[in-house]
This record gives sequence, structure tokens and C-alpha cells, in this order.
Amino acid sequence: MRGPLAIIAGAGDFPVRLAALAAARGTPVFIAALEGAAVPATFGAADLQSYRLGQLGRLLDDLRRREILDLVLIGSLPRPSFAALRPEASTLKHLPHFARAFRGGDDHLLRGVVTFFEGQGFTVHGPADVAPQIAAPVGPLGRKAVSPAQRELVTRGFSLLAALSPFDVGQAAILADHRVVAIEGAEGTDAMIRRVGDLVASGRLRLAKGDGVLVKAPKDGQDLRVDMPAIGADTLRNVAAAGLAGIALRAGQVLVGDAGELGERADQCGLFVEGVAP
Amino acid sequence: MRGPLAIIAGAGDFPVRLAALAAARGTPVFIAALEGAAVPATFGAADLQSYRLGQLGRLLDDLRRREILDLVLIGSLPRPSFAALRPEASTLKHLPHFARAFRGGDDHLLRGVVTFFEGQGFTVHGPADVAPQIAAPVGPLGRKAVSPAQRELVTRGFSLLAALSPFDVGQAAILADHRVVAIEGAEGTDAMIRRVGDLVASGRLRLAKGDGVLVKAPKDGQDLRVDMPAIGADTLRNVAAAGLAGIALRAGQVLVGDAGELGERADQCGLFVEGVAP
Repeated sequence: MRGPLAIIAGAGDFPVRLAALAAARGTPVFIAALEGAAVPATFGAADLQSYRLGQLGRLLDDLRRREILDLVLIGSLPRPSFAALRPEASTLKHLPHFARAFRGGDDHLLRGVVTFFEGQGFTVHGPADVAPQIAAPVGPLGRKAVSPAQRELVTRGFSLLAALSPFDVGQAAILADHRVVAIEGAEGTDAMIRRVGDLVASGRLRLAKGDGVLVKAPKDGQDLRVDMPAIGADTLRNVAAAGLAGIALRAGQVLVGDAGELGERADQCGLFVEGVAP
Repeated sequence: MRGPLAIIAGAGDFPVRLAALAAARGTPVFIAALEGAAVPATFGAADLQSYRLGQLGRLLDDLRRREILDLVLIGSLPRPSFAALRPEASTLKHLPHFARAFRGGDDHLLRGVVTFFEGQGFTVHGPADVAPQIAAPVGPLGRKAVSPAQRELVTRGFSLLAALSPFDVGQAAILADHRVVAIEGAEGTDAMIRRVGDLVASGRLRLAKGDGVLVKAPKDGQDLRVDMPAIGADTLRNVAAAGLAGIALRAGQVLVGDAGELGERADQCGLFVEGVAP
């Protein structure tokens, strides 16, 4: 880092956790809190300003005034309608770039955001580059570790996700009863977990004790600077409610926030949560 | 064929259609209607007997008395509980074979049924070997054909299914909005179609006019003698209700019953339904 680090913060715990990890190792941090997503009070005493998406010009001015060259984008953001941006005058000249980016899918939009900041002379870092502890470590996060039978499912699951990668689909899958029972599509991870829970509840899928694993990994070529897969307490609750045994994550490539805290949650839910080295 | 053909018939229209197609080309047919699944009256004047699953011994005797060596298994069958078989004395000696087959998944059970009949000296034929017209032909079944933009999705969809095949999953997928939006797991094709319909209804997936295709094909190594994928009028209704544009089937490898009738349904629903050569 060649100066303070700007954290452009969306919703959720991850931006707060990243700010704390960066500050803990002495990196000066500036929080650009995105209105309607980040909650300023959760960042404590940090140097913080709030911005609407339409205040991009003002954000750039503030970053330059602070001699900031490095930034991280983290946290969730509802996909904004282009009309709702309400751009300020200093933002207007940047709109054509984003108008182009908006015409593609989510991946395209994220790439557009990265290329925008790079074009303005900034370096965009991934959260795990700034603070590796924010991603899944190698090994179990809680007390339970993967059994040999579960290991077989986990290995097959990661192979499956790798095979799906060229098709730009499949950040997650569920394996149980010796087979693949669900693959994530546009519905998202939580809906997929609920689907398997419904199959179990209706008796269409029978789980032996210790059976059922969720595997989660980024797709090949996914830009881990702005688009890391993530799990949190919600995911653990859903996996436990579905009757599954645990979760395997690609270590270093899936956001977990606070691995220790998530490990405690895993213990409370009776699940294994384990990072698996690529 | 070296004598009459036995059609061991489960539920649905496919056994009736197969009996008609075989009879139309002069093959003498014997219908073994499985109780609780096949409806005897739908087969018209055919030589027909009904059997419980526990009357396997009696079925074998009847087949031999008729000098039948060739048989087809077709139609759906609720997976029976082993206890509900109520085997007759002449069936008891065959139970160990099926007890072993029951311990695996559905594929294992189906393979067990085939090996049983083969072990008894019969030849088990696939429905499409007996009557190719019962499977999807090459080309459109109705008036609508696949557009170039749809063709791109269809081709990608079949590649995806082929990539999934080694993992013994994925008989179907839905592509829309330039990407893969759903892959079939243990929930089955109809539930997958409804899921996509829900994404469309909730605005999470936006479909342009003519967008959205279901692709369906068997997995590599799937035993097409006893386990062909199938579509029917229900599938077409669901696909239309979800707002998709059409269905692409692997020609010769997906049961359609009466292709002309299904083409008319496709026209009524405003869908394309097209068989694609392997």
C-alpha cells in the first residue's frame, strides 16, 4: 500500500470485519460507505464518509484529496436501477462507462466497476489480498472434521464445480446419498439448500447419519477482487435445517468473515465447516 | 424377434403407444400390465394379463408358455416398498436378486431388473429399438423451429449435460439470458422448470422474447433399455407456464410417445420442440 486503503463498503458484516483486520495491522483505512447498504455506526471510529452511487465524482475527489491509491470493494449491494443513481454533476461524465457495463450481466457490471477505478489510476485489491483471514482457512473451522465418507463426496463435489466452470455456472452443489443431488443455478445457494431440505422433509431423499455436504468454490476466472463467494451464519443455519452434515469451502477463495466465530456457529449447529486447499 | 414381444407395462401413455406401434407393424404383442400402474382397458383388444410385482414367478411362467423370448419394460412405476411386494411362492426364490438390487439407487435397481430377465434367458429391448417413432425424431416436432440465438443456447446446453455426465447427474438444464440458469438434480425436471418460472415471475430472471430453452438428454452410460428420459404434454405446459421459448431433445434418446401429437401441443403452447441429432 502506498497510502491509506479505501474500503468501498456495501452491506453486511464483511466490510466491518475487513476494516478491523486492516486497522489491526496498522493500515490507515478510509471507509466509503454506500448509502442504503453499509451502516456507518458499525464501523466505530474509522474515517468514514457516506456516498450515494450518484456521488461517484465526489468519492473520486475525496480519495484523491486523501492521496489514496489502493481500494477494496466489499459487501453486498442491491443491483441499482440506472435511473435511481441521481448522478451529481461531477459524476455525469463517468456515466457512459457504467451505462455500457449495465447492459451485460452481473459479472460484466463488476468488471466494469474494476476497469473504471483502474482507468482512474487506482489499484483494486481483493479482500483476501488485504486480509487473508477474511477467507476460509485450510482445515476445519470448528471441532468437527470431514470423515472419510464425507471426504469422498467433497472431492467429487469440487471436481463437479470445476467441470461446470467453463459454463459459467455452479458456485455450489450438494452431494448426498452417494450422488449429486443439487447444483446451484440462478436461484442462489440458499434456495438450493432449501430445495434439498424439502426433498429430505418429503422423504424423496433419505440421509444417513453424517450424510450430505454443501461444497462451495468460485468459478474459474471469477474476479476474486470484487466477486468472492461467501458464506455466513445464515448459510450454516440453512444447511443444518436441511439435515446436511456440513460445508466444504475452497480455502482462500470463499469469504467467511471471522473464521473463529463461524467455527463456533458450526459447533452449535453440529456441522463441519472445512476449508479445502485448491 | 423370435416370437411375440412382451411389453411389461407401467403407468402412462408410453406403453399403450408402444403396443400400438409394434402391433401396427405386425409384431404379436403380449401385455404384462403391472397392477396399480398400467390401466388394462387402455390397451384395447391386446393379449393382456395383470400382475402384482409379487407375481413375478407367474409372469415368467406365462411368458414361457407363450414362447416369448423378447421383452420391453416401459412406463413409470412408483418405487415399491420391498415389504409391499407380497410375493407368491413361485416368486420367493427370485427375491435375493431383487433384495440386492434394492440396496442401491434407482439406476442400480433398474440394472438389477435387466440382469434378472437376462439371467432367465430373455432379451430386454429398449422401446426405441422396438419402435423408433416413440423417441424424439431429428428436427422440429411442431411448426416452430429453433432460431439462431436459441441454437446457441441449445448447443451450450447439450455440452453442459455432457460435461455433467461423468458425475451421474443432469438429465436436463435450462438456459436463458445468455447463461445457464438451472440444472436438474434430485428434484426432477418439472420442479426445475417451476423454479425457473418462479425466478421469472419474481423478476429475478428477465426473459426477452424467444429466450429460454430446456435441454434434455440421457446421461452417458444411462441404460436406454429401461431408463430413457421422457417428456410429455405436462412438460410442455410447464415450460410454457414458466415463460420459456421451447425444448430441445437428444433425438432418438428421449421418449416423446407420439411425435405428431406432441408437435400439435407445442404449436398450441407457442413453443418449439426440436430433436437434435447426437
